[in-house]
Amino acid sequence: MVVLSEDDGGVRLLTFNRPDRLNAWTDEMGRSYFDLLEEADRDPSVRAVVVTGAGRGFCAGADFRTLTEIGSGEYAGKPDDRPTTFPATIRKPIVAAVNGACAGLGMVHALVCDVVLTAEDAKWTTAFSRRGLIAEYGLAWILPRLAGQARAMDLLLSARVFSGAEAYAMGLAVRAVPGERLLEEALAYAGELARECSPTSMSIIKRQVWGDWETGLDESRDRAVRLMAESFGRPDFAEGVGAFLERRPPRFPPLG
Amino acid sequence: MVVLSEDDGGVRLLTFNRPDRLNAWTDEMGRSYFDLLEEADRDPSVRAVVVTGAGRGFCAGADFRTLTEIGSGEYAGKPDDRPTTFPATIRKPIVAAVNGACAGLGMVHALVCDVVLTAEDAKWTTAFSRRGLIAEYGLAWILPRLAGQARAMDLLLSARVFSGAEAYAMGLAVRAVPGERLLEEALAYAGELARECSPTSMSIIKRQVWGDWETGLDESRDRAVRLMAESFGRPDFAEGVGAFLERRPPRFPPLG
Amino acid sequence: MVVLSEDDGGVRLLTFNRPDRLNAWTDEMGRSYFDLLEEADRDPSVRAVVVTGAGRGFCAGADFRTLTEIGSGEYAGKPDDRPTTFPATIRKPIVAAVNGACAGLGMVHALVCDVVLTAEDAKWTTAFSRRGLIAEYGLAWILPRLAGQARAMDLLLSARVFSGAEAYAMGLAVRAVPGERLLEEALAYAGELARECSPTSMSIIKRQVWGDWETGLDESRDRAVRLMAESFGRPDFAEGVGAFLERRPPRFPPLG
Repeated sequence: MVVLSEDDGGVRLLTFNRPDRLNAWTDEMGRSYFDLLEEADRDPSVRAVVVTGAGRGFCAGADFRTLTEIGSGEYAGKPDDRPTTFPATIRKPIVAAVNGACAGLGMVHALVCDVVLTAEDAKWTTAFSRRGLIAEYGLAWILPRLAGQARAMDLLLSARVFSGAEAYAMGLAVRAVPGERLLEEALAYAGELARECSPTSMSIIKRQVWGDWETGLDESRDRAVRLMAESFGRPDFAEGVGAFLERRPPRFPPLG
Repeated sequence: MVVLSEDDGGVRLLTFNRPDRLNAWTDEMGRSYFDLLEEADRDPSVRAVVVTGAGRGFCAGADFRTLTEIGSGEYAGKPDDRPTTFPATIRKPIVAAVNGACAGLGMVHALVCDVVLTAEDAKWTTAFSRRGLIAEYGLAWILPRLAGQARAMDLLLSARVFSGAEAYAMGLAVRAVPGERLLEEALAYAGELARECSPTSMSIIKRQVWGDWETGLDESRDRAVRLMAESFGRPDFAEGVGAFLERRPPRFPPLG
Repeated sequence: MVVLSEDDGGVRLLTFNRPDRLNAWTDEMGRSYFDLLEEADRDPSVRAVVVTGAGRGFCAGADFRTLTEIGSGEYAGKPDDRPTTFPATIRKPIVAAVNGACAGLGMVHALVCDVVLTAEDAKWTTAFSRRGLIAEYGLAWILPRLAGQARAMDLLLSARVFSGAEAYAMGLAVRAVPGERLLEEALAYAGELARECSPTSMSIIKRQVWGDWETGLDESRDRAVRLMAESFGRPDFAEGVGAFLERRPPRFPPLG
């Protein structure tokens, strides 16, 4: 299995599993990963997803065999129909746990997750400019919105290697922790989402945050007013207010 | 009075005044607050506004009686015509001094101010996902533009509580100070705006910054060239340059 | 010469050279600077540009003689056809080394460079609101995208003076260093771009990052897929992959 899947409470843990290649990306991995995300989206028992890499790396980028075949014109693979930004369309929160090397295409896969936690000493790099490539798959859109224009330009122009600690300082990750504690922290973070937060609320909020980069403030506000009015009629609202007033854990219904 | 108003030099201080409820928001507070902002906009003696909360909180969110009435279908209030983002349209700078609990709708009211100062130990939370609600009133638009996409997603998905010190580190606030010094610092900040900066310049700059998220760089630049040409003909320009060259405090005319 | 030009490997160093006026901006400087940028764009030996100021300042803003003439209606200069944001359209990376005073129009010229390094104790200020002016030439667009909405609003409304160290913390600069080491660091940074990174890759990435603020995520991603496919056919890709696999420095062709 090139991507492993296991459950921990309401959290589904997906693990890129080509550790001998630092989980370098292949078409097969991509199909498997996105299939598993679709399954997680459909499965009512899943409330949050964690994605990490087996072994020392998270994902070292495109597999070099693929790149070499592309270079020589021998590549016969078929890209998946689902775009690289597919995870942003999944209705459940996806938490990347960047355990080690996170390069090129691997960085794209980390940053289209909703929230990133990273090992302090994980090595990150965009890599593209040093391979004669360009800012792939929307990274020129995402990076400036995570870290600001200047830091994004620095990382993309220079393709310098930077640490997880720096990724955190720049806003790519919301937490940087010692590597040996990373998975535990990511599962705890996702577990709290699964236990404490309304799945319906999270699915709407996720769509709002990704989508509101393309609206004006007034339009975002007017849409939010409509979404809020709809939420008043759902059981999640009564349950959320009730649990708060009664100081007890909420029991939110799964996503429909 | 649910919102207090007093003047300090050219600074108008507005104080949410339901301290026994941590200034939880009611329709009456909203109307009163926005009326006072309109008055501050019109009054030539006012050059900057500070907004804070009486007692231990800034604003703990929507009043629970209102929420409960909404939940049971008994709510008979009428929302104000002016939208929650109304403060962004006021021509004078509005400085929020977040003295304590800042949750849900309270966080919206803080972040549609132009500049935020916060007590280091103030407790902030978006709250929505834990109440079965969504990112209300444009917060899905504002938060990513203040703190970046990942931090905004974290705060909105998890609704975790965070401190004023963290709000500052993430860019929600421009300063975090010990609580007992907060109001003094906010009044000093606004006082400097009132004394040193042209009211006309500030009103145009405020409109530029809120508005230029919806333009391209070329359009923003071309509009700025026109605005700059207009500013050359105003007394504020002569006074600003004169005061600088003569090393004296400026005497800018009030906003027309 | 109001702007000096010299080469260091593939790096062209341009120096604003009116040190007795802290390099205050004149029409002549603007024409000379943009002419030199055009030359650097055309010259195949140039792979990166560094811009700095002679003496104690980077650029203290518009020359006061020009401002005074504008104020009295005696100004007879002709603005350059090329807009102030012209550097963003140059195909090669431009690194600003902000060695000292960086005010008003000088701050615009620093921040339309792609990457900024600053002396820790350089004094920065937007200046405009204290001169009766407005956020000039796209700064209301750029600053919030570098530092976030609240910090940009603070800097533009208050026109307070801040240090290079703070400029770095806010994301305006990617590095703040002791003044005596600044030029050396900026030349080393640009030198690494010149030696290690594909000129064609950098020119495309630069255009992507500046441009993708005006697109949605899907559009950015689709365009990147097309740009990536084109890059597979260029010698830079073969050379980048080859150099990596052979662990040798790359020999990328100059920009066509």
